[in-house]
Amino acid sequence: MRSYEEFAREREEQNRLVLESADRVTKRFFSLDALTYRDGALPAATKELLGLVASLVLRCDDCVAYHLGRCRDLGHTGEEVSEALGVAMVVGGSITIPHVRRAVALWGELTEKASELEEREER
Amino acid sequence: MRSYEEFAREREEQNRLVLESADRVTKRFFSLDALTYRDGALPAATKELLGLVASLVLRCDDCVAYHLGRCRDLGHTGEEVSEALGVAMVVGGSITIPHVRRAVALWGELTEKASELEEREER
Amino acid sequence: MRSYEEFAREREEQNRLVLESADRVTKRFFSLDALTYRDGALPAATKELLGLVASLVLRCDDCVAYHLGRCRDLGHTGEEVSEALGVAMVVGGSITIPHVRRAVALWGELTEKASELEEREER
Amino acid sequence: MRSYEEFAREREEQNRLVLESADRVTKRFFSLDALTYRDGALPAATKELLGLVASLVLRCDDCVAYHLGRCRDLGHTGEEVSEALGVAMVVGGSITIPHVRRAVALWGELTEKASELEEREER
Amino acid sequence: MRSYEEFAREREEQNRLVLESADRVTKRFFSLDALTYRDGALPAATKELLGLVASLVLRCDDCVAYHLGRCRDLGHTGEEVSEALGVAMVVGGSITIPHVRRAVALWGELTEKASELEEREER
Amino acid sequence: MRSYEEFAREREEQNRLVLESADRVTKRFFSLDALTYRDGALPAATKELLGLVASLVLRCDDCVAYHLGRCRDLGHTGEEVSEALGVAMVVGGSITIPHVRRAVALWGELTEKASELEEREER
Repeated sequence: MRSYEEFAREREEQNRLVLESADRVTKRFFSLDALTYRDGALPAATKELLGLVASLVLRCDDCVAYHLGRCRDLGHTGEEVSEALGVAMVVGGSITIPHVRRAVALWGELTEKASELEEREER
Repeated sequence: MRSYEEFAREREEQNRLVLESADRVTKRFFSLDALTYRDGALPAATKELLGLVASLVLRCDDCVAYHLGRCRDLGHTGEEVSEALGVAMVVGGSITIPHVRRAVALWGELTEKASELEEREER
Repeated sequence: MRSYEEFAREREEQNRLVLESADRVTKRFFSLDALTYRDGALPAATKELLGLVASLVLRCDDCVAYHLGRCRDLGHTGEEVSEALGVAMVVGGSITIPHVRRAVALWGELTEKASELEEREER
Repeated sequence: MRSYEEFAREREEQNRLVLESADRVTKRFFSLDALTYRDGALPAATKELLGLVASLVLRCDDCVAYHLGRCRDLGHTGEEVSEALGVAMVVGGSITIPHVRRAVALWGELTEKASELEEREER
Repeated sequence: MRSYEEFAREREEQNRLVLESADRVTKRFFSLDALTYRDGALPAATKELLGLVASLVLRCDDCVAYHLGRCRDLGHTGEEVSEALGVAMVVGGSITIPHVRRAVALWGELTEKASELEEREER
Repeated sequence: MRSYEEFAREREEQNRLVLESADRVTKRFFSLDALTYRDGALPAATKELLGLVASLVLRCDDCVAYHLGRCRDLGHTGEEVSEALGVAMVVGGSITIPHVRRAVALWGELTEKASELEEREER
């Protein structure tokens, strides 16, 4: 399985390529996509859970990876992420299980790295 | 468009039919489905939003109707539901728009009825 | 809910329309579709269950109705159909439940009609 | 089957409802959606065929109805629409057939009306 | 393409991770998933074909790999698997072809290994 | 990301495997698939754009890669391909973005190679 960092680097490089050659439709869609997850009546943290569940039932590993990173950045606990994945798995069925497996492995990687960083800072 | 009440009545009747003839797999799946939306690390109200967004990106009108009813029962405002539908629409694309249209119409129906009831009670 | 007979009549009328204006691609696809469900290494009856499950996880009510009709014609019992629907529901998730509900209601209609016919013949 | 006019009227009414309560995300998405189908490197007529095929493989009857109306307005012939539906059917499989059936019936309705109007104008 | 063994090992490791951190919903879903494919009115072997076809039309390579392994364990012949893949391909369309390609390559790998083992045992 | 050439080679090898063991259904489906993209009322070049958009909204990287190769062979410009991807992205939503990213990267690879070849020929 690709690491989160490999995913994030490839994503950034390819996004640059897309935006270099992008027409108006693509540019507007990318900026709309960013706008969608800002704080509003619902906090940004809740919207990231919505994005995570939507990505999982539609079974897009890259989208799941992206929203997991955002969920960690916005402070969601493992229990919260776990329950969100549970909703997605029940709605989307056993066909989502391979994606749940990869999501759990990636979450482990994301939070391990986070706790290593915290340990270092504490020293 | 079918009203919420027609949907709810047909759903109840057909669920009874399903459970009458259900084997173990079906019975367990129905009870698991109920368990999924209970309060936990995430409040039930948030889980209903997750169910709503999952249902909308997978484009199931009946599932959307069900979760809209639950979102209203659990106290979500129109702005919150609107933003959740917005996340689903951006993730799922313009193919979700007909379902967003029906969701907005149904939400109008659900909240109109609610405010009529409140008015009556106030008298 | 539309009855099986209404479905079957509309299907037949619209198929006629399609084939009247069909080009080679469409004609060949329709004849390939018929070929797919013939007896082979797997009996036709098993293939209809495969078609039923595929239709249910892809959530197409018309396709489900068609394969339910064929499953009855080829002698599948309610228990067999029920278990096939169970596999589909677990693979496809709770998003399939509204389609399972309609499938169970339709199967009831199909087998009621069948047992009425048998009763009449027995007299 | 609902007529094209019923579809168009309901679509217009519900779009009004959506835009009345719409937040920024929804408004921008609707305006982006309109922008997407304008003449560019590809003519608008080709883009409508792309929208039609995308709608058919994603199996959204309302979206198919909308793009069929636009295809007629922009001058596509029945043969062109038929071949586009053929591509969609082969890519998307027999699960699309019920939608192809409804698309063909609707196209018949749309072009019948058009030829009646032309006849009247010729008199 | 990943070998069947690599898939099976990764699947096992990740399943362990999932179950370590799993809440009740996830645990019950995993045990329900196992229950679904047991002998009943339909034999387990038929249910695996149903799972295979469902996985292929929903286009999940990992799920297809898993059910192919089970189909071999339960004694399905290449002709039977081939016909099941054919049903899935016709229902799901040409978009399934890359998955059919990988399924056929994997089946070759699974049965080659099986015949090597048999040869050794015969000596 | 896999290069176009690796994709094309694996595709060819696996197609050979599929056709070696193929029954009538599979053989006919493959030949129908080829027939679908021939010149007709719509030129082959337009049909490849239809295939590209259908593949992108259904999110199949291999199918997208194949149709991108064909779009280049049939003379589509980067602007035309870009607009077709834009239609697909708006219809299919942000869930298609990872596939759009890979499509743009692959198109870059395909056209770089083409311009290198042209340069060599000009010398």
